[in-house]
Amino acid sequence: MNPGLGMEEPIVDSERLDHLLSQIKDYQITHGFLLKGVRLEQRTTVPCRPVNVSILPTPFPRDLFEDAMDLQDLYTDLYIRASSDPEWLYAVLDPLLKPGSVVKALWDIWIQVQQTGVVQDVVCGIFRSDYMLHHTSRNGPVALKQVEMNTLCIAGACHAERASDLHSHLKRMKDLASIRQQRPASQVRQDEGSLPLNDNMLTLISALKAAHDTYTPSTPHPTCVLMPVQPTNFNIADERPLEYGLWDESIPCYRCDWPDIISQTTLTPDRSLLFQRFDLTFEVSLVYYRAGYEAHEYATPSGISTRLRLELSRAIKCPDVLTHLTTFKSVQAALTHHSALAYLNISPDDQARLAETFMPMFSLADPGCLKLVQNTPEIGDWILKPNLEGGGHNIHGPSIPAFISNLPQSSYADYTLMQRIRPPEQKSVLMLPDQVYQGPVISELGVIGTCLWRRNAEEKGVREVLRKETAGWTFKTKPAGVDEMSVVKGYGCFDCPLLVEKDGAAGSHV
Amino acid sequence: MNPGLGMEEPIVDSERLDHLLSQIKDYQITHGFLLKGVRLEQRTTVPCRPVNVSILPTPFPRDLFEDAMDLQDLYTDLYIRASSDPEWLYAVLDPLLKPGSVVKALWDIWIQVQQTGVVQDVVCGIFRSDYMLHHTSRNGPVALKQVEMNTLCIAGACHAERASDLHSHLKRMKDLASIRQQRPASQVRQDEGSLPLNDNMLTLISALKAAHDTYTPSTPHPTCVLMPVQPTNFNIADERPLEYGLWDESIPCYRCDWPDIISQTTLTPDRSLLFQRFDLTFEVSLVYYRAGYEAHEYATPSGISTRLRLELSRAIKCPDVLTHLTTFKSVQAALTHHSALAYLNISPDDQARLAETFMPMFSLADPGCLKLVQNTPEIGDWILKPNLEGGGHNIHGPSIPAFISNLPQSSYADYTLMQRIRPPEQKSVLMLPDQVYQGPVISELGVIGTCLWRRNAEEKGVREVLRKETAGWTFKTKPAGVDEMSVVKGYGCFDCPLLVEKDGAAGSHV
Repeated sequence: MNPGLGMEEPIVDSERLDHLLSQIKDYQITHGFLLKGVRLEQRTTVPCRPVNVSILPTPFPRDLFEDAMDLQDLYTDLYIRASSDPEWLYAVLDPLLKPGSVVKALWDIWIQVQQTGVVQDVVCGIFRSDYMLHHTSRNGPVALKQVEMNTLCIAGACHAERASDLHSHLKRMKDLASIRQQRPASQVRQDEGSLPLNDNMLTLISALKAAHDTYTPSTPHPTCVLMPVQPTNFNIADERPLEYGLWDESIPCYRCDWPDIISQTTLTPDRSLLFQRFDLTFEVSLVYYRAGYEAHEYATPSGISTRLRLELSRAIKCPDVLTHLTTFKSVQAALTHHSALAYLNISPDDQARLAETFMPMFSLADPGCLKLVQNTPEIGDWILKPNLEGGGHNIHGPSIPAFISNLPQSSYADYTLMQRIRPPEQKSVLMLPDQVYQGPVISELGVIGTCLWRRNAEEKGVREVLRKETAGWTFKTKPAGVDEMSVVKGYGCFDCPLLVEKDGAAGSHV
Repeated sequence: MNPGLGMEEPIVDSERLDHLLSQIKDYQITHGFLLKGVRLEQRTTVPCRPVNVSILPTPFPRDLFEDAMDLQDLYTDLYIRASSDPEWLYAVLDPLLKPGSVVKALWDIWIQVQQTGVVQDVVCGIFRSDYMLHHTSRNGPVALKQVEMNTLCIAGACHAERASDLHSHLKRMKDLASIRQQRPASQVRQDEGSLPLNDNMLTLISALKAAHDTYTPSTPHPTCVLMPVQPTNFNIADERPLEYGLWDESIPCYRCDWPDIISQTTLTPDRSLLFQRFDLTFEVSLVYYRAGYEAHEYATPSGISTRLRLELSRAIKCPDVLTHLTTFKSVQAALTHHSALAYLNISPDDQARLAETFMPMFSLADPGCLKLVQNTPEIGDWILKPNLEGGGHNIHGPSIPAFISNLPQSSYADYTLMQRIRPPEQKSVLMLPDQVYQGPVISELGVIGTCLWRRNAEEKGVREVLRKETAGWTFKTKPAGVDEMSVVKGYGCFDCPLLVEKDGAAGSHV
């Protein structure tokens, strides 16, 4: 990574920077805003270190932040509908259903659940819609564009809340400067923007609690929430607070490593899911997946059996396998078409609102798509994304033609072409593990929606939305020169948006 | 350290132990229950690791726990009185006032403050009285005995609260076993004891806030609490929460490294203490010392000037130098004598209550003391303690005669001889950095008292106690074979007492 160090004009001077770095590191240590050094873990100790964070909050237009928060209800609704229509999903995913693929494994699990009979029609969802700012034209206005939609195992909610709290703390220390300079409060507000609140943890916990409370047990065992997790996870600080929060609500919540689920659970004849830990047996009310989203987890028969058992059970799933299937890029691409939105009964007004956030997206298997790639002089303006959950593994601009020339045509459907989002230039200061970065940055805003709904088991569609809430936000920032946005891999930082009015976006945040 | 591993009967089996260790480490990471790896600190990152903790809460008699909590009010009162009587203090400390000693440096600072004129008669105290259980005779009853009294920079309050919370979390997970076994709730309580609440942080913050609120500023600058701290401190997780808590109360609180205080503070003509950080200037309302308690901090003229400036100022000190001087072992030894208690106007009833917690203590300079050391066949039953703040550096039992034979007589006054506390055998399970220890242990209970009082500037004595509160407790446990109790050095663990009734003390906590 060479994110362009050696900027001529640092945004923060060296002395103040040292002070901020010291404040930030200690804040992170004392607030569990950390990554666990699992590779160095020993039986009685384990090192950990601060997660990458921004040193200053990065400006973001207040109106677009509010738009994104407002839109979440609609996006949540859209994905509830998409996941409740297996026919439509099948039509979209069919080209991807090749032996050995995760999509096929998941689809087969759904078929088996369907054939055995669905015994739980309530589904819990925690979704995150990610956005970036986009210059619609040179010198044109800035718009909000959806990067992707995540419908399972969404991460970063706890870290985002801590990043927000951290910047609020640094801001209250800084705001004393304003007091001393006797500036009127209104002017301070306008000059310096403001930091939005974040209560992700509370709202996620209340969503999980609502799902737990909805479940009707069928055995005399106490109920619990089961959280399948990945073994040796360095990101436990983003999961554990939700577990503790459930305990604080008197709801037992147990983590279980993905490979151990087969041996620690059983299905009763009526398909209640029992979970055993030592001499305790629980009836699982809710399966809250924080594992089961990577290909290797389905690469063995035991991995597939694990998911199948959980999906066959009477436990409520967050999310179930059908909802999981909506997380693939092909679904996102399909939903950019009005015909799909109309089919899913989205009103014309809402279609228009959603469409404003769409970037052009096509399956590489679409006949017109390959032509577009081969003929466009601006291929640099596109990104090729594999149909995997989450970000990463993308092929960028100029590398696309060469990549495609080596790709068998049978694999075209595995890739989605998306026009690149071109964010306006913004500057910020980031604490990366090996350096302080001061310079141009790109931010990504995620908005989290939670929901609980009842499917129509007899026919496609939603019977009843029991609960729908916009939980909160995540905000990540990376150096502008870096393609991938992954905080835990060291490429980006958790951040907090500094909400600014349209005319005061840049340079006002120091 | 060889704390006697290889016990035949482990208290917890290996599988359950692994589960507990995993729970504990993650809980510590996510709750900032950590030590900072300052020696490996880099500009943008720093490793940290879990503090040593007990894996099970260690049993402690409920009645003696409650006695210790009840006694704190009296101990706080005693030390308020002792620190408000410079004449009495001088009589006790005079033999220690040798050039180059910390006691002398501190006493000289007090003399200078007195000669310049005391401009702040309000003092804030945060004291911690440490106790161990003691077998008064073979097979006799167990009593509470004071190990030492700490009157400045008391540490461990934040960690103690987290240890209490950790064990409460592990207990609520474990208590489900009781639910399933359908045992009546009353029986569960009696069998398993209970974990006392701990709200150290809240109560310490409210004590500091009360001091801050008492201060009357004399300049137009905003006021702040100044926290002198030691540079490169690995134990920030025990300090930072108090700072954040003050900010949460809208009280600015700034840490300043001890060596930087001279350059970042000034005294106004009326001796208001101004603190500068970047372009901000504050009038310091309260100096909350978390530095200034080690000999090396007074080894240079600049170290002495630092303390002198703070003490000369109008800021309230927590604690001031006179109160600091009561932390030496000679003072503790002097206060075990009824004559001293009577002189300080402690009532006969209260004298008797305090005396029950005294172990015999003598200055080595007392004529009878040397004879005792030379003649007693049970020298193994005594400990020789240097007049330093806090624990450590002690000479134990059989090593004492050889140590004294090499000690110049002029140094006798620097040592206090104390009869060794003989705690009853108790077993527990500890998470040490390099191993799990299962076996006999020794615990130390600390009780924290906070206070705010007005001295009588004209004559010796207390004019008014403005506030006095028993804040909470600390609880540390070490393998029985280890002499020193220092968690951060790796010899002991933060722990939570499992309060048990007299008849059910041992073996009931698994």
